[in-house]
Amino acid sequence: MSISGPGFCRKLGPSQMRFQLSIGVRRSSLMIKPWEVLSSKIELEDRWIKVRADDCQRSDGLIIKPYYVLEYADWVCVLAITPDGNVVLTTEYRHGVRSIVTGLPSGVVDKEDSGPEGTARRELLEETGYTSEHMVPLGSLYANCTNQPNLVHYFLARDAELTGTPALDANEQIDVELVPWEQVRSTPFLRQSHHVACLHLAEKYFDVCSPATIV
Amino acid sequence: MSISGPGFCRKLGPSQMRFQLSIGVRRSSLMIKPWEVLSSKIELEDRWIKVRADDCQRSDGLIIKPYYVLEYADWVCVLAITPDGNVVLTTEYRHGVRSIVTGLPSGVVDKEDSGPEGTARRELLEETGYTSEHMVPLGSLYANCTNQPNLVHYFLARDAELTGTPALDANEQIDVELVPWEQVRSTPFLRQSHHVACLHLAEKYFDVCSPATIV
Repeated sequence: MSISGPGFCRKLGPSQMRFQLSIGVRRSSLMIKPWEVLSSKIELEDRWIKVRADDCQRSDGLIIKPYYVLEYADWVCVLAITPDGNVVLTTEYRHGVRSIVTGLPSGVVDKEDSGPEGTARRELLEETGYTSEHMVPLGSLYANCTNQPNLVHYFLARDAELTGTPALDANEQIDVELVPWEQVRSTPFLRQSHHVACLHLAEKYFDVCSPATIV
Repeated sequence: MSISGPGFCRKLGPSQMRFQLSIGVRRSSLMIKPWEVLSSKIELEDRWIKVRADDCQRSDGLIIKPYYVLEYADWVCVLAITPDGNVVLTTEYRHGVRSIVTGLPSGVVDKEDSGPEGTARRELLEETGYTSEHMVPLGSLYANCTNQPNLVHYFLARDAELTGTPALDANEQIDVELVPWEQVRSTPFLRQSHHVACLHLAEKYFDVCSPATIV
């Protein structure tokens, strides 16, 4: 049984396979309380960035100011696997590190999208030309809870097939590559933290639904 | 044999255990070239934040401006495991998501630190009071290669022992908690992408050095 075959994941239904995390206060602490926001202003904003500066007060009275928050929208990240067990990878220039980097299809949840899964489908198609009839939510994690409110929503696109043509934005140049899952998961192939987190969520998914059958 | 016992990881020496990633251009592409930076300016800067705006030109002539880069210093993240197999976790208020979040000890590589491992030791001690004689580098990943140049350096602190008292910064309030490794790795316990990436790196490490002995 392959990771994408029809017998895959028979033990649990789709709703049970959701590793969606409950976002919120996991446990209370007598000492640790949320901060009160005394005032807030936008320091920098245009189409691409929004930096908010909050003046805050802790429960013990300590004033913390400014505290910068980067108001990003949510992101998605897609681990797309073909029926023969290859992962669909994208290689593009990443100006943050001024280097050409291989990673997973990913992008920003637009207001026009039907939700994170719609974004995942759109980004996978736009960046790679691949689509999937079996999009499995793997979970959502904070992108960087220290100073960003946004989540990364992770999806496994099972049985991904090349059904279209990449439709890149004007500012995108992307090479698509297929690499066996075993190689992606077991080697230092992906170099971005968010993408490596996706490998962990996928392995948890595979552990539960088909422990001995990862390709 | 426990994950922290004296017989742990006998197969490979410390240098072979390094999963340090080579950061740079992994493969070349005929189409994808780095951008040329035409001009650059700092849009926002103080002690806590530095936002740079680059005007760039792609190899095909397309002008991309502005492209924002957040000039963070490198970060560290520490998976500290006690001799009896518990992970040392920190719980603190995270203003980015306005919630109390449990995660791994982590922090910023200061100029005064001797390097990422020194930062890892310092942050582990400052945030939790724990120290380790066996700090294993698990690898380094881009924090967010899209618009940040910094890396997250991951460390496994084996045989971590409570040897000191947390020395928190004035703006830190942290609860320390011990949770079995098996629970941390197999449940949606950690909710931040960077920290979940650490679980993947740690599992790769354990796979190589002691496949059947993870607690």
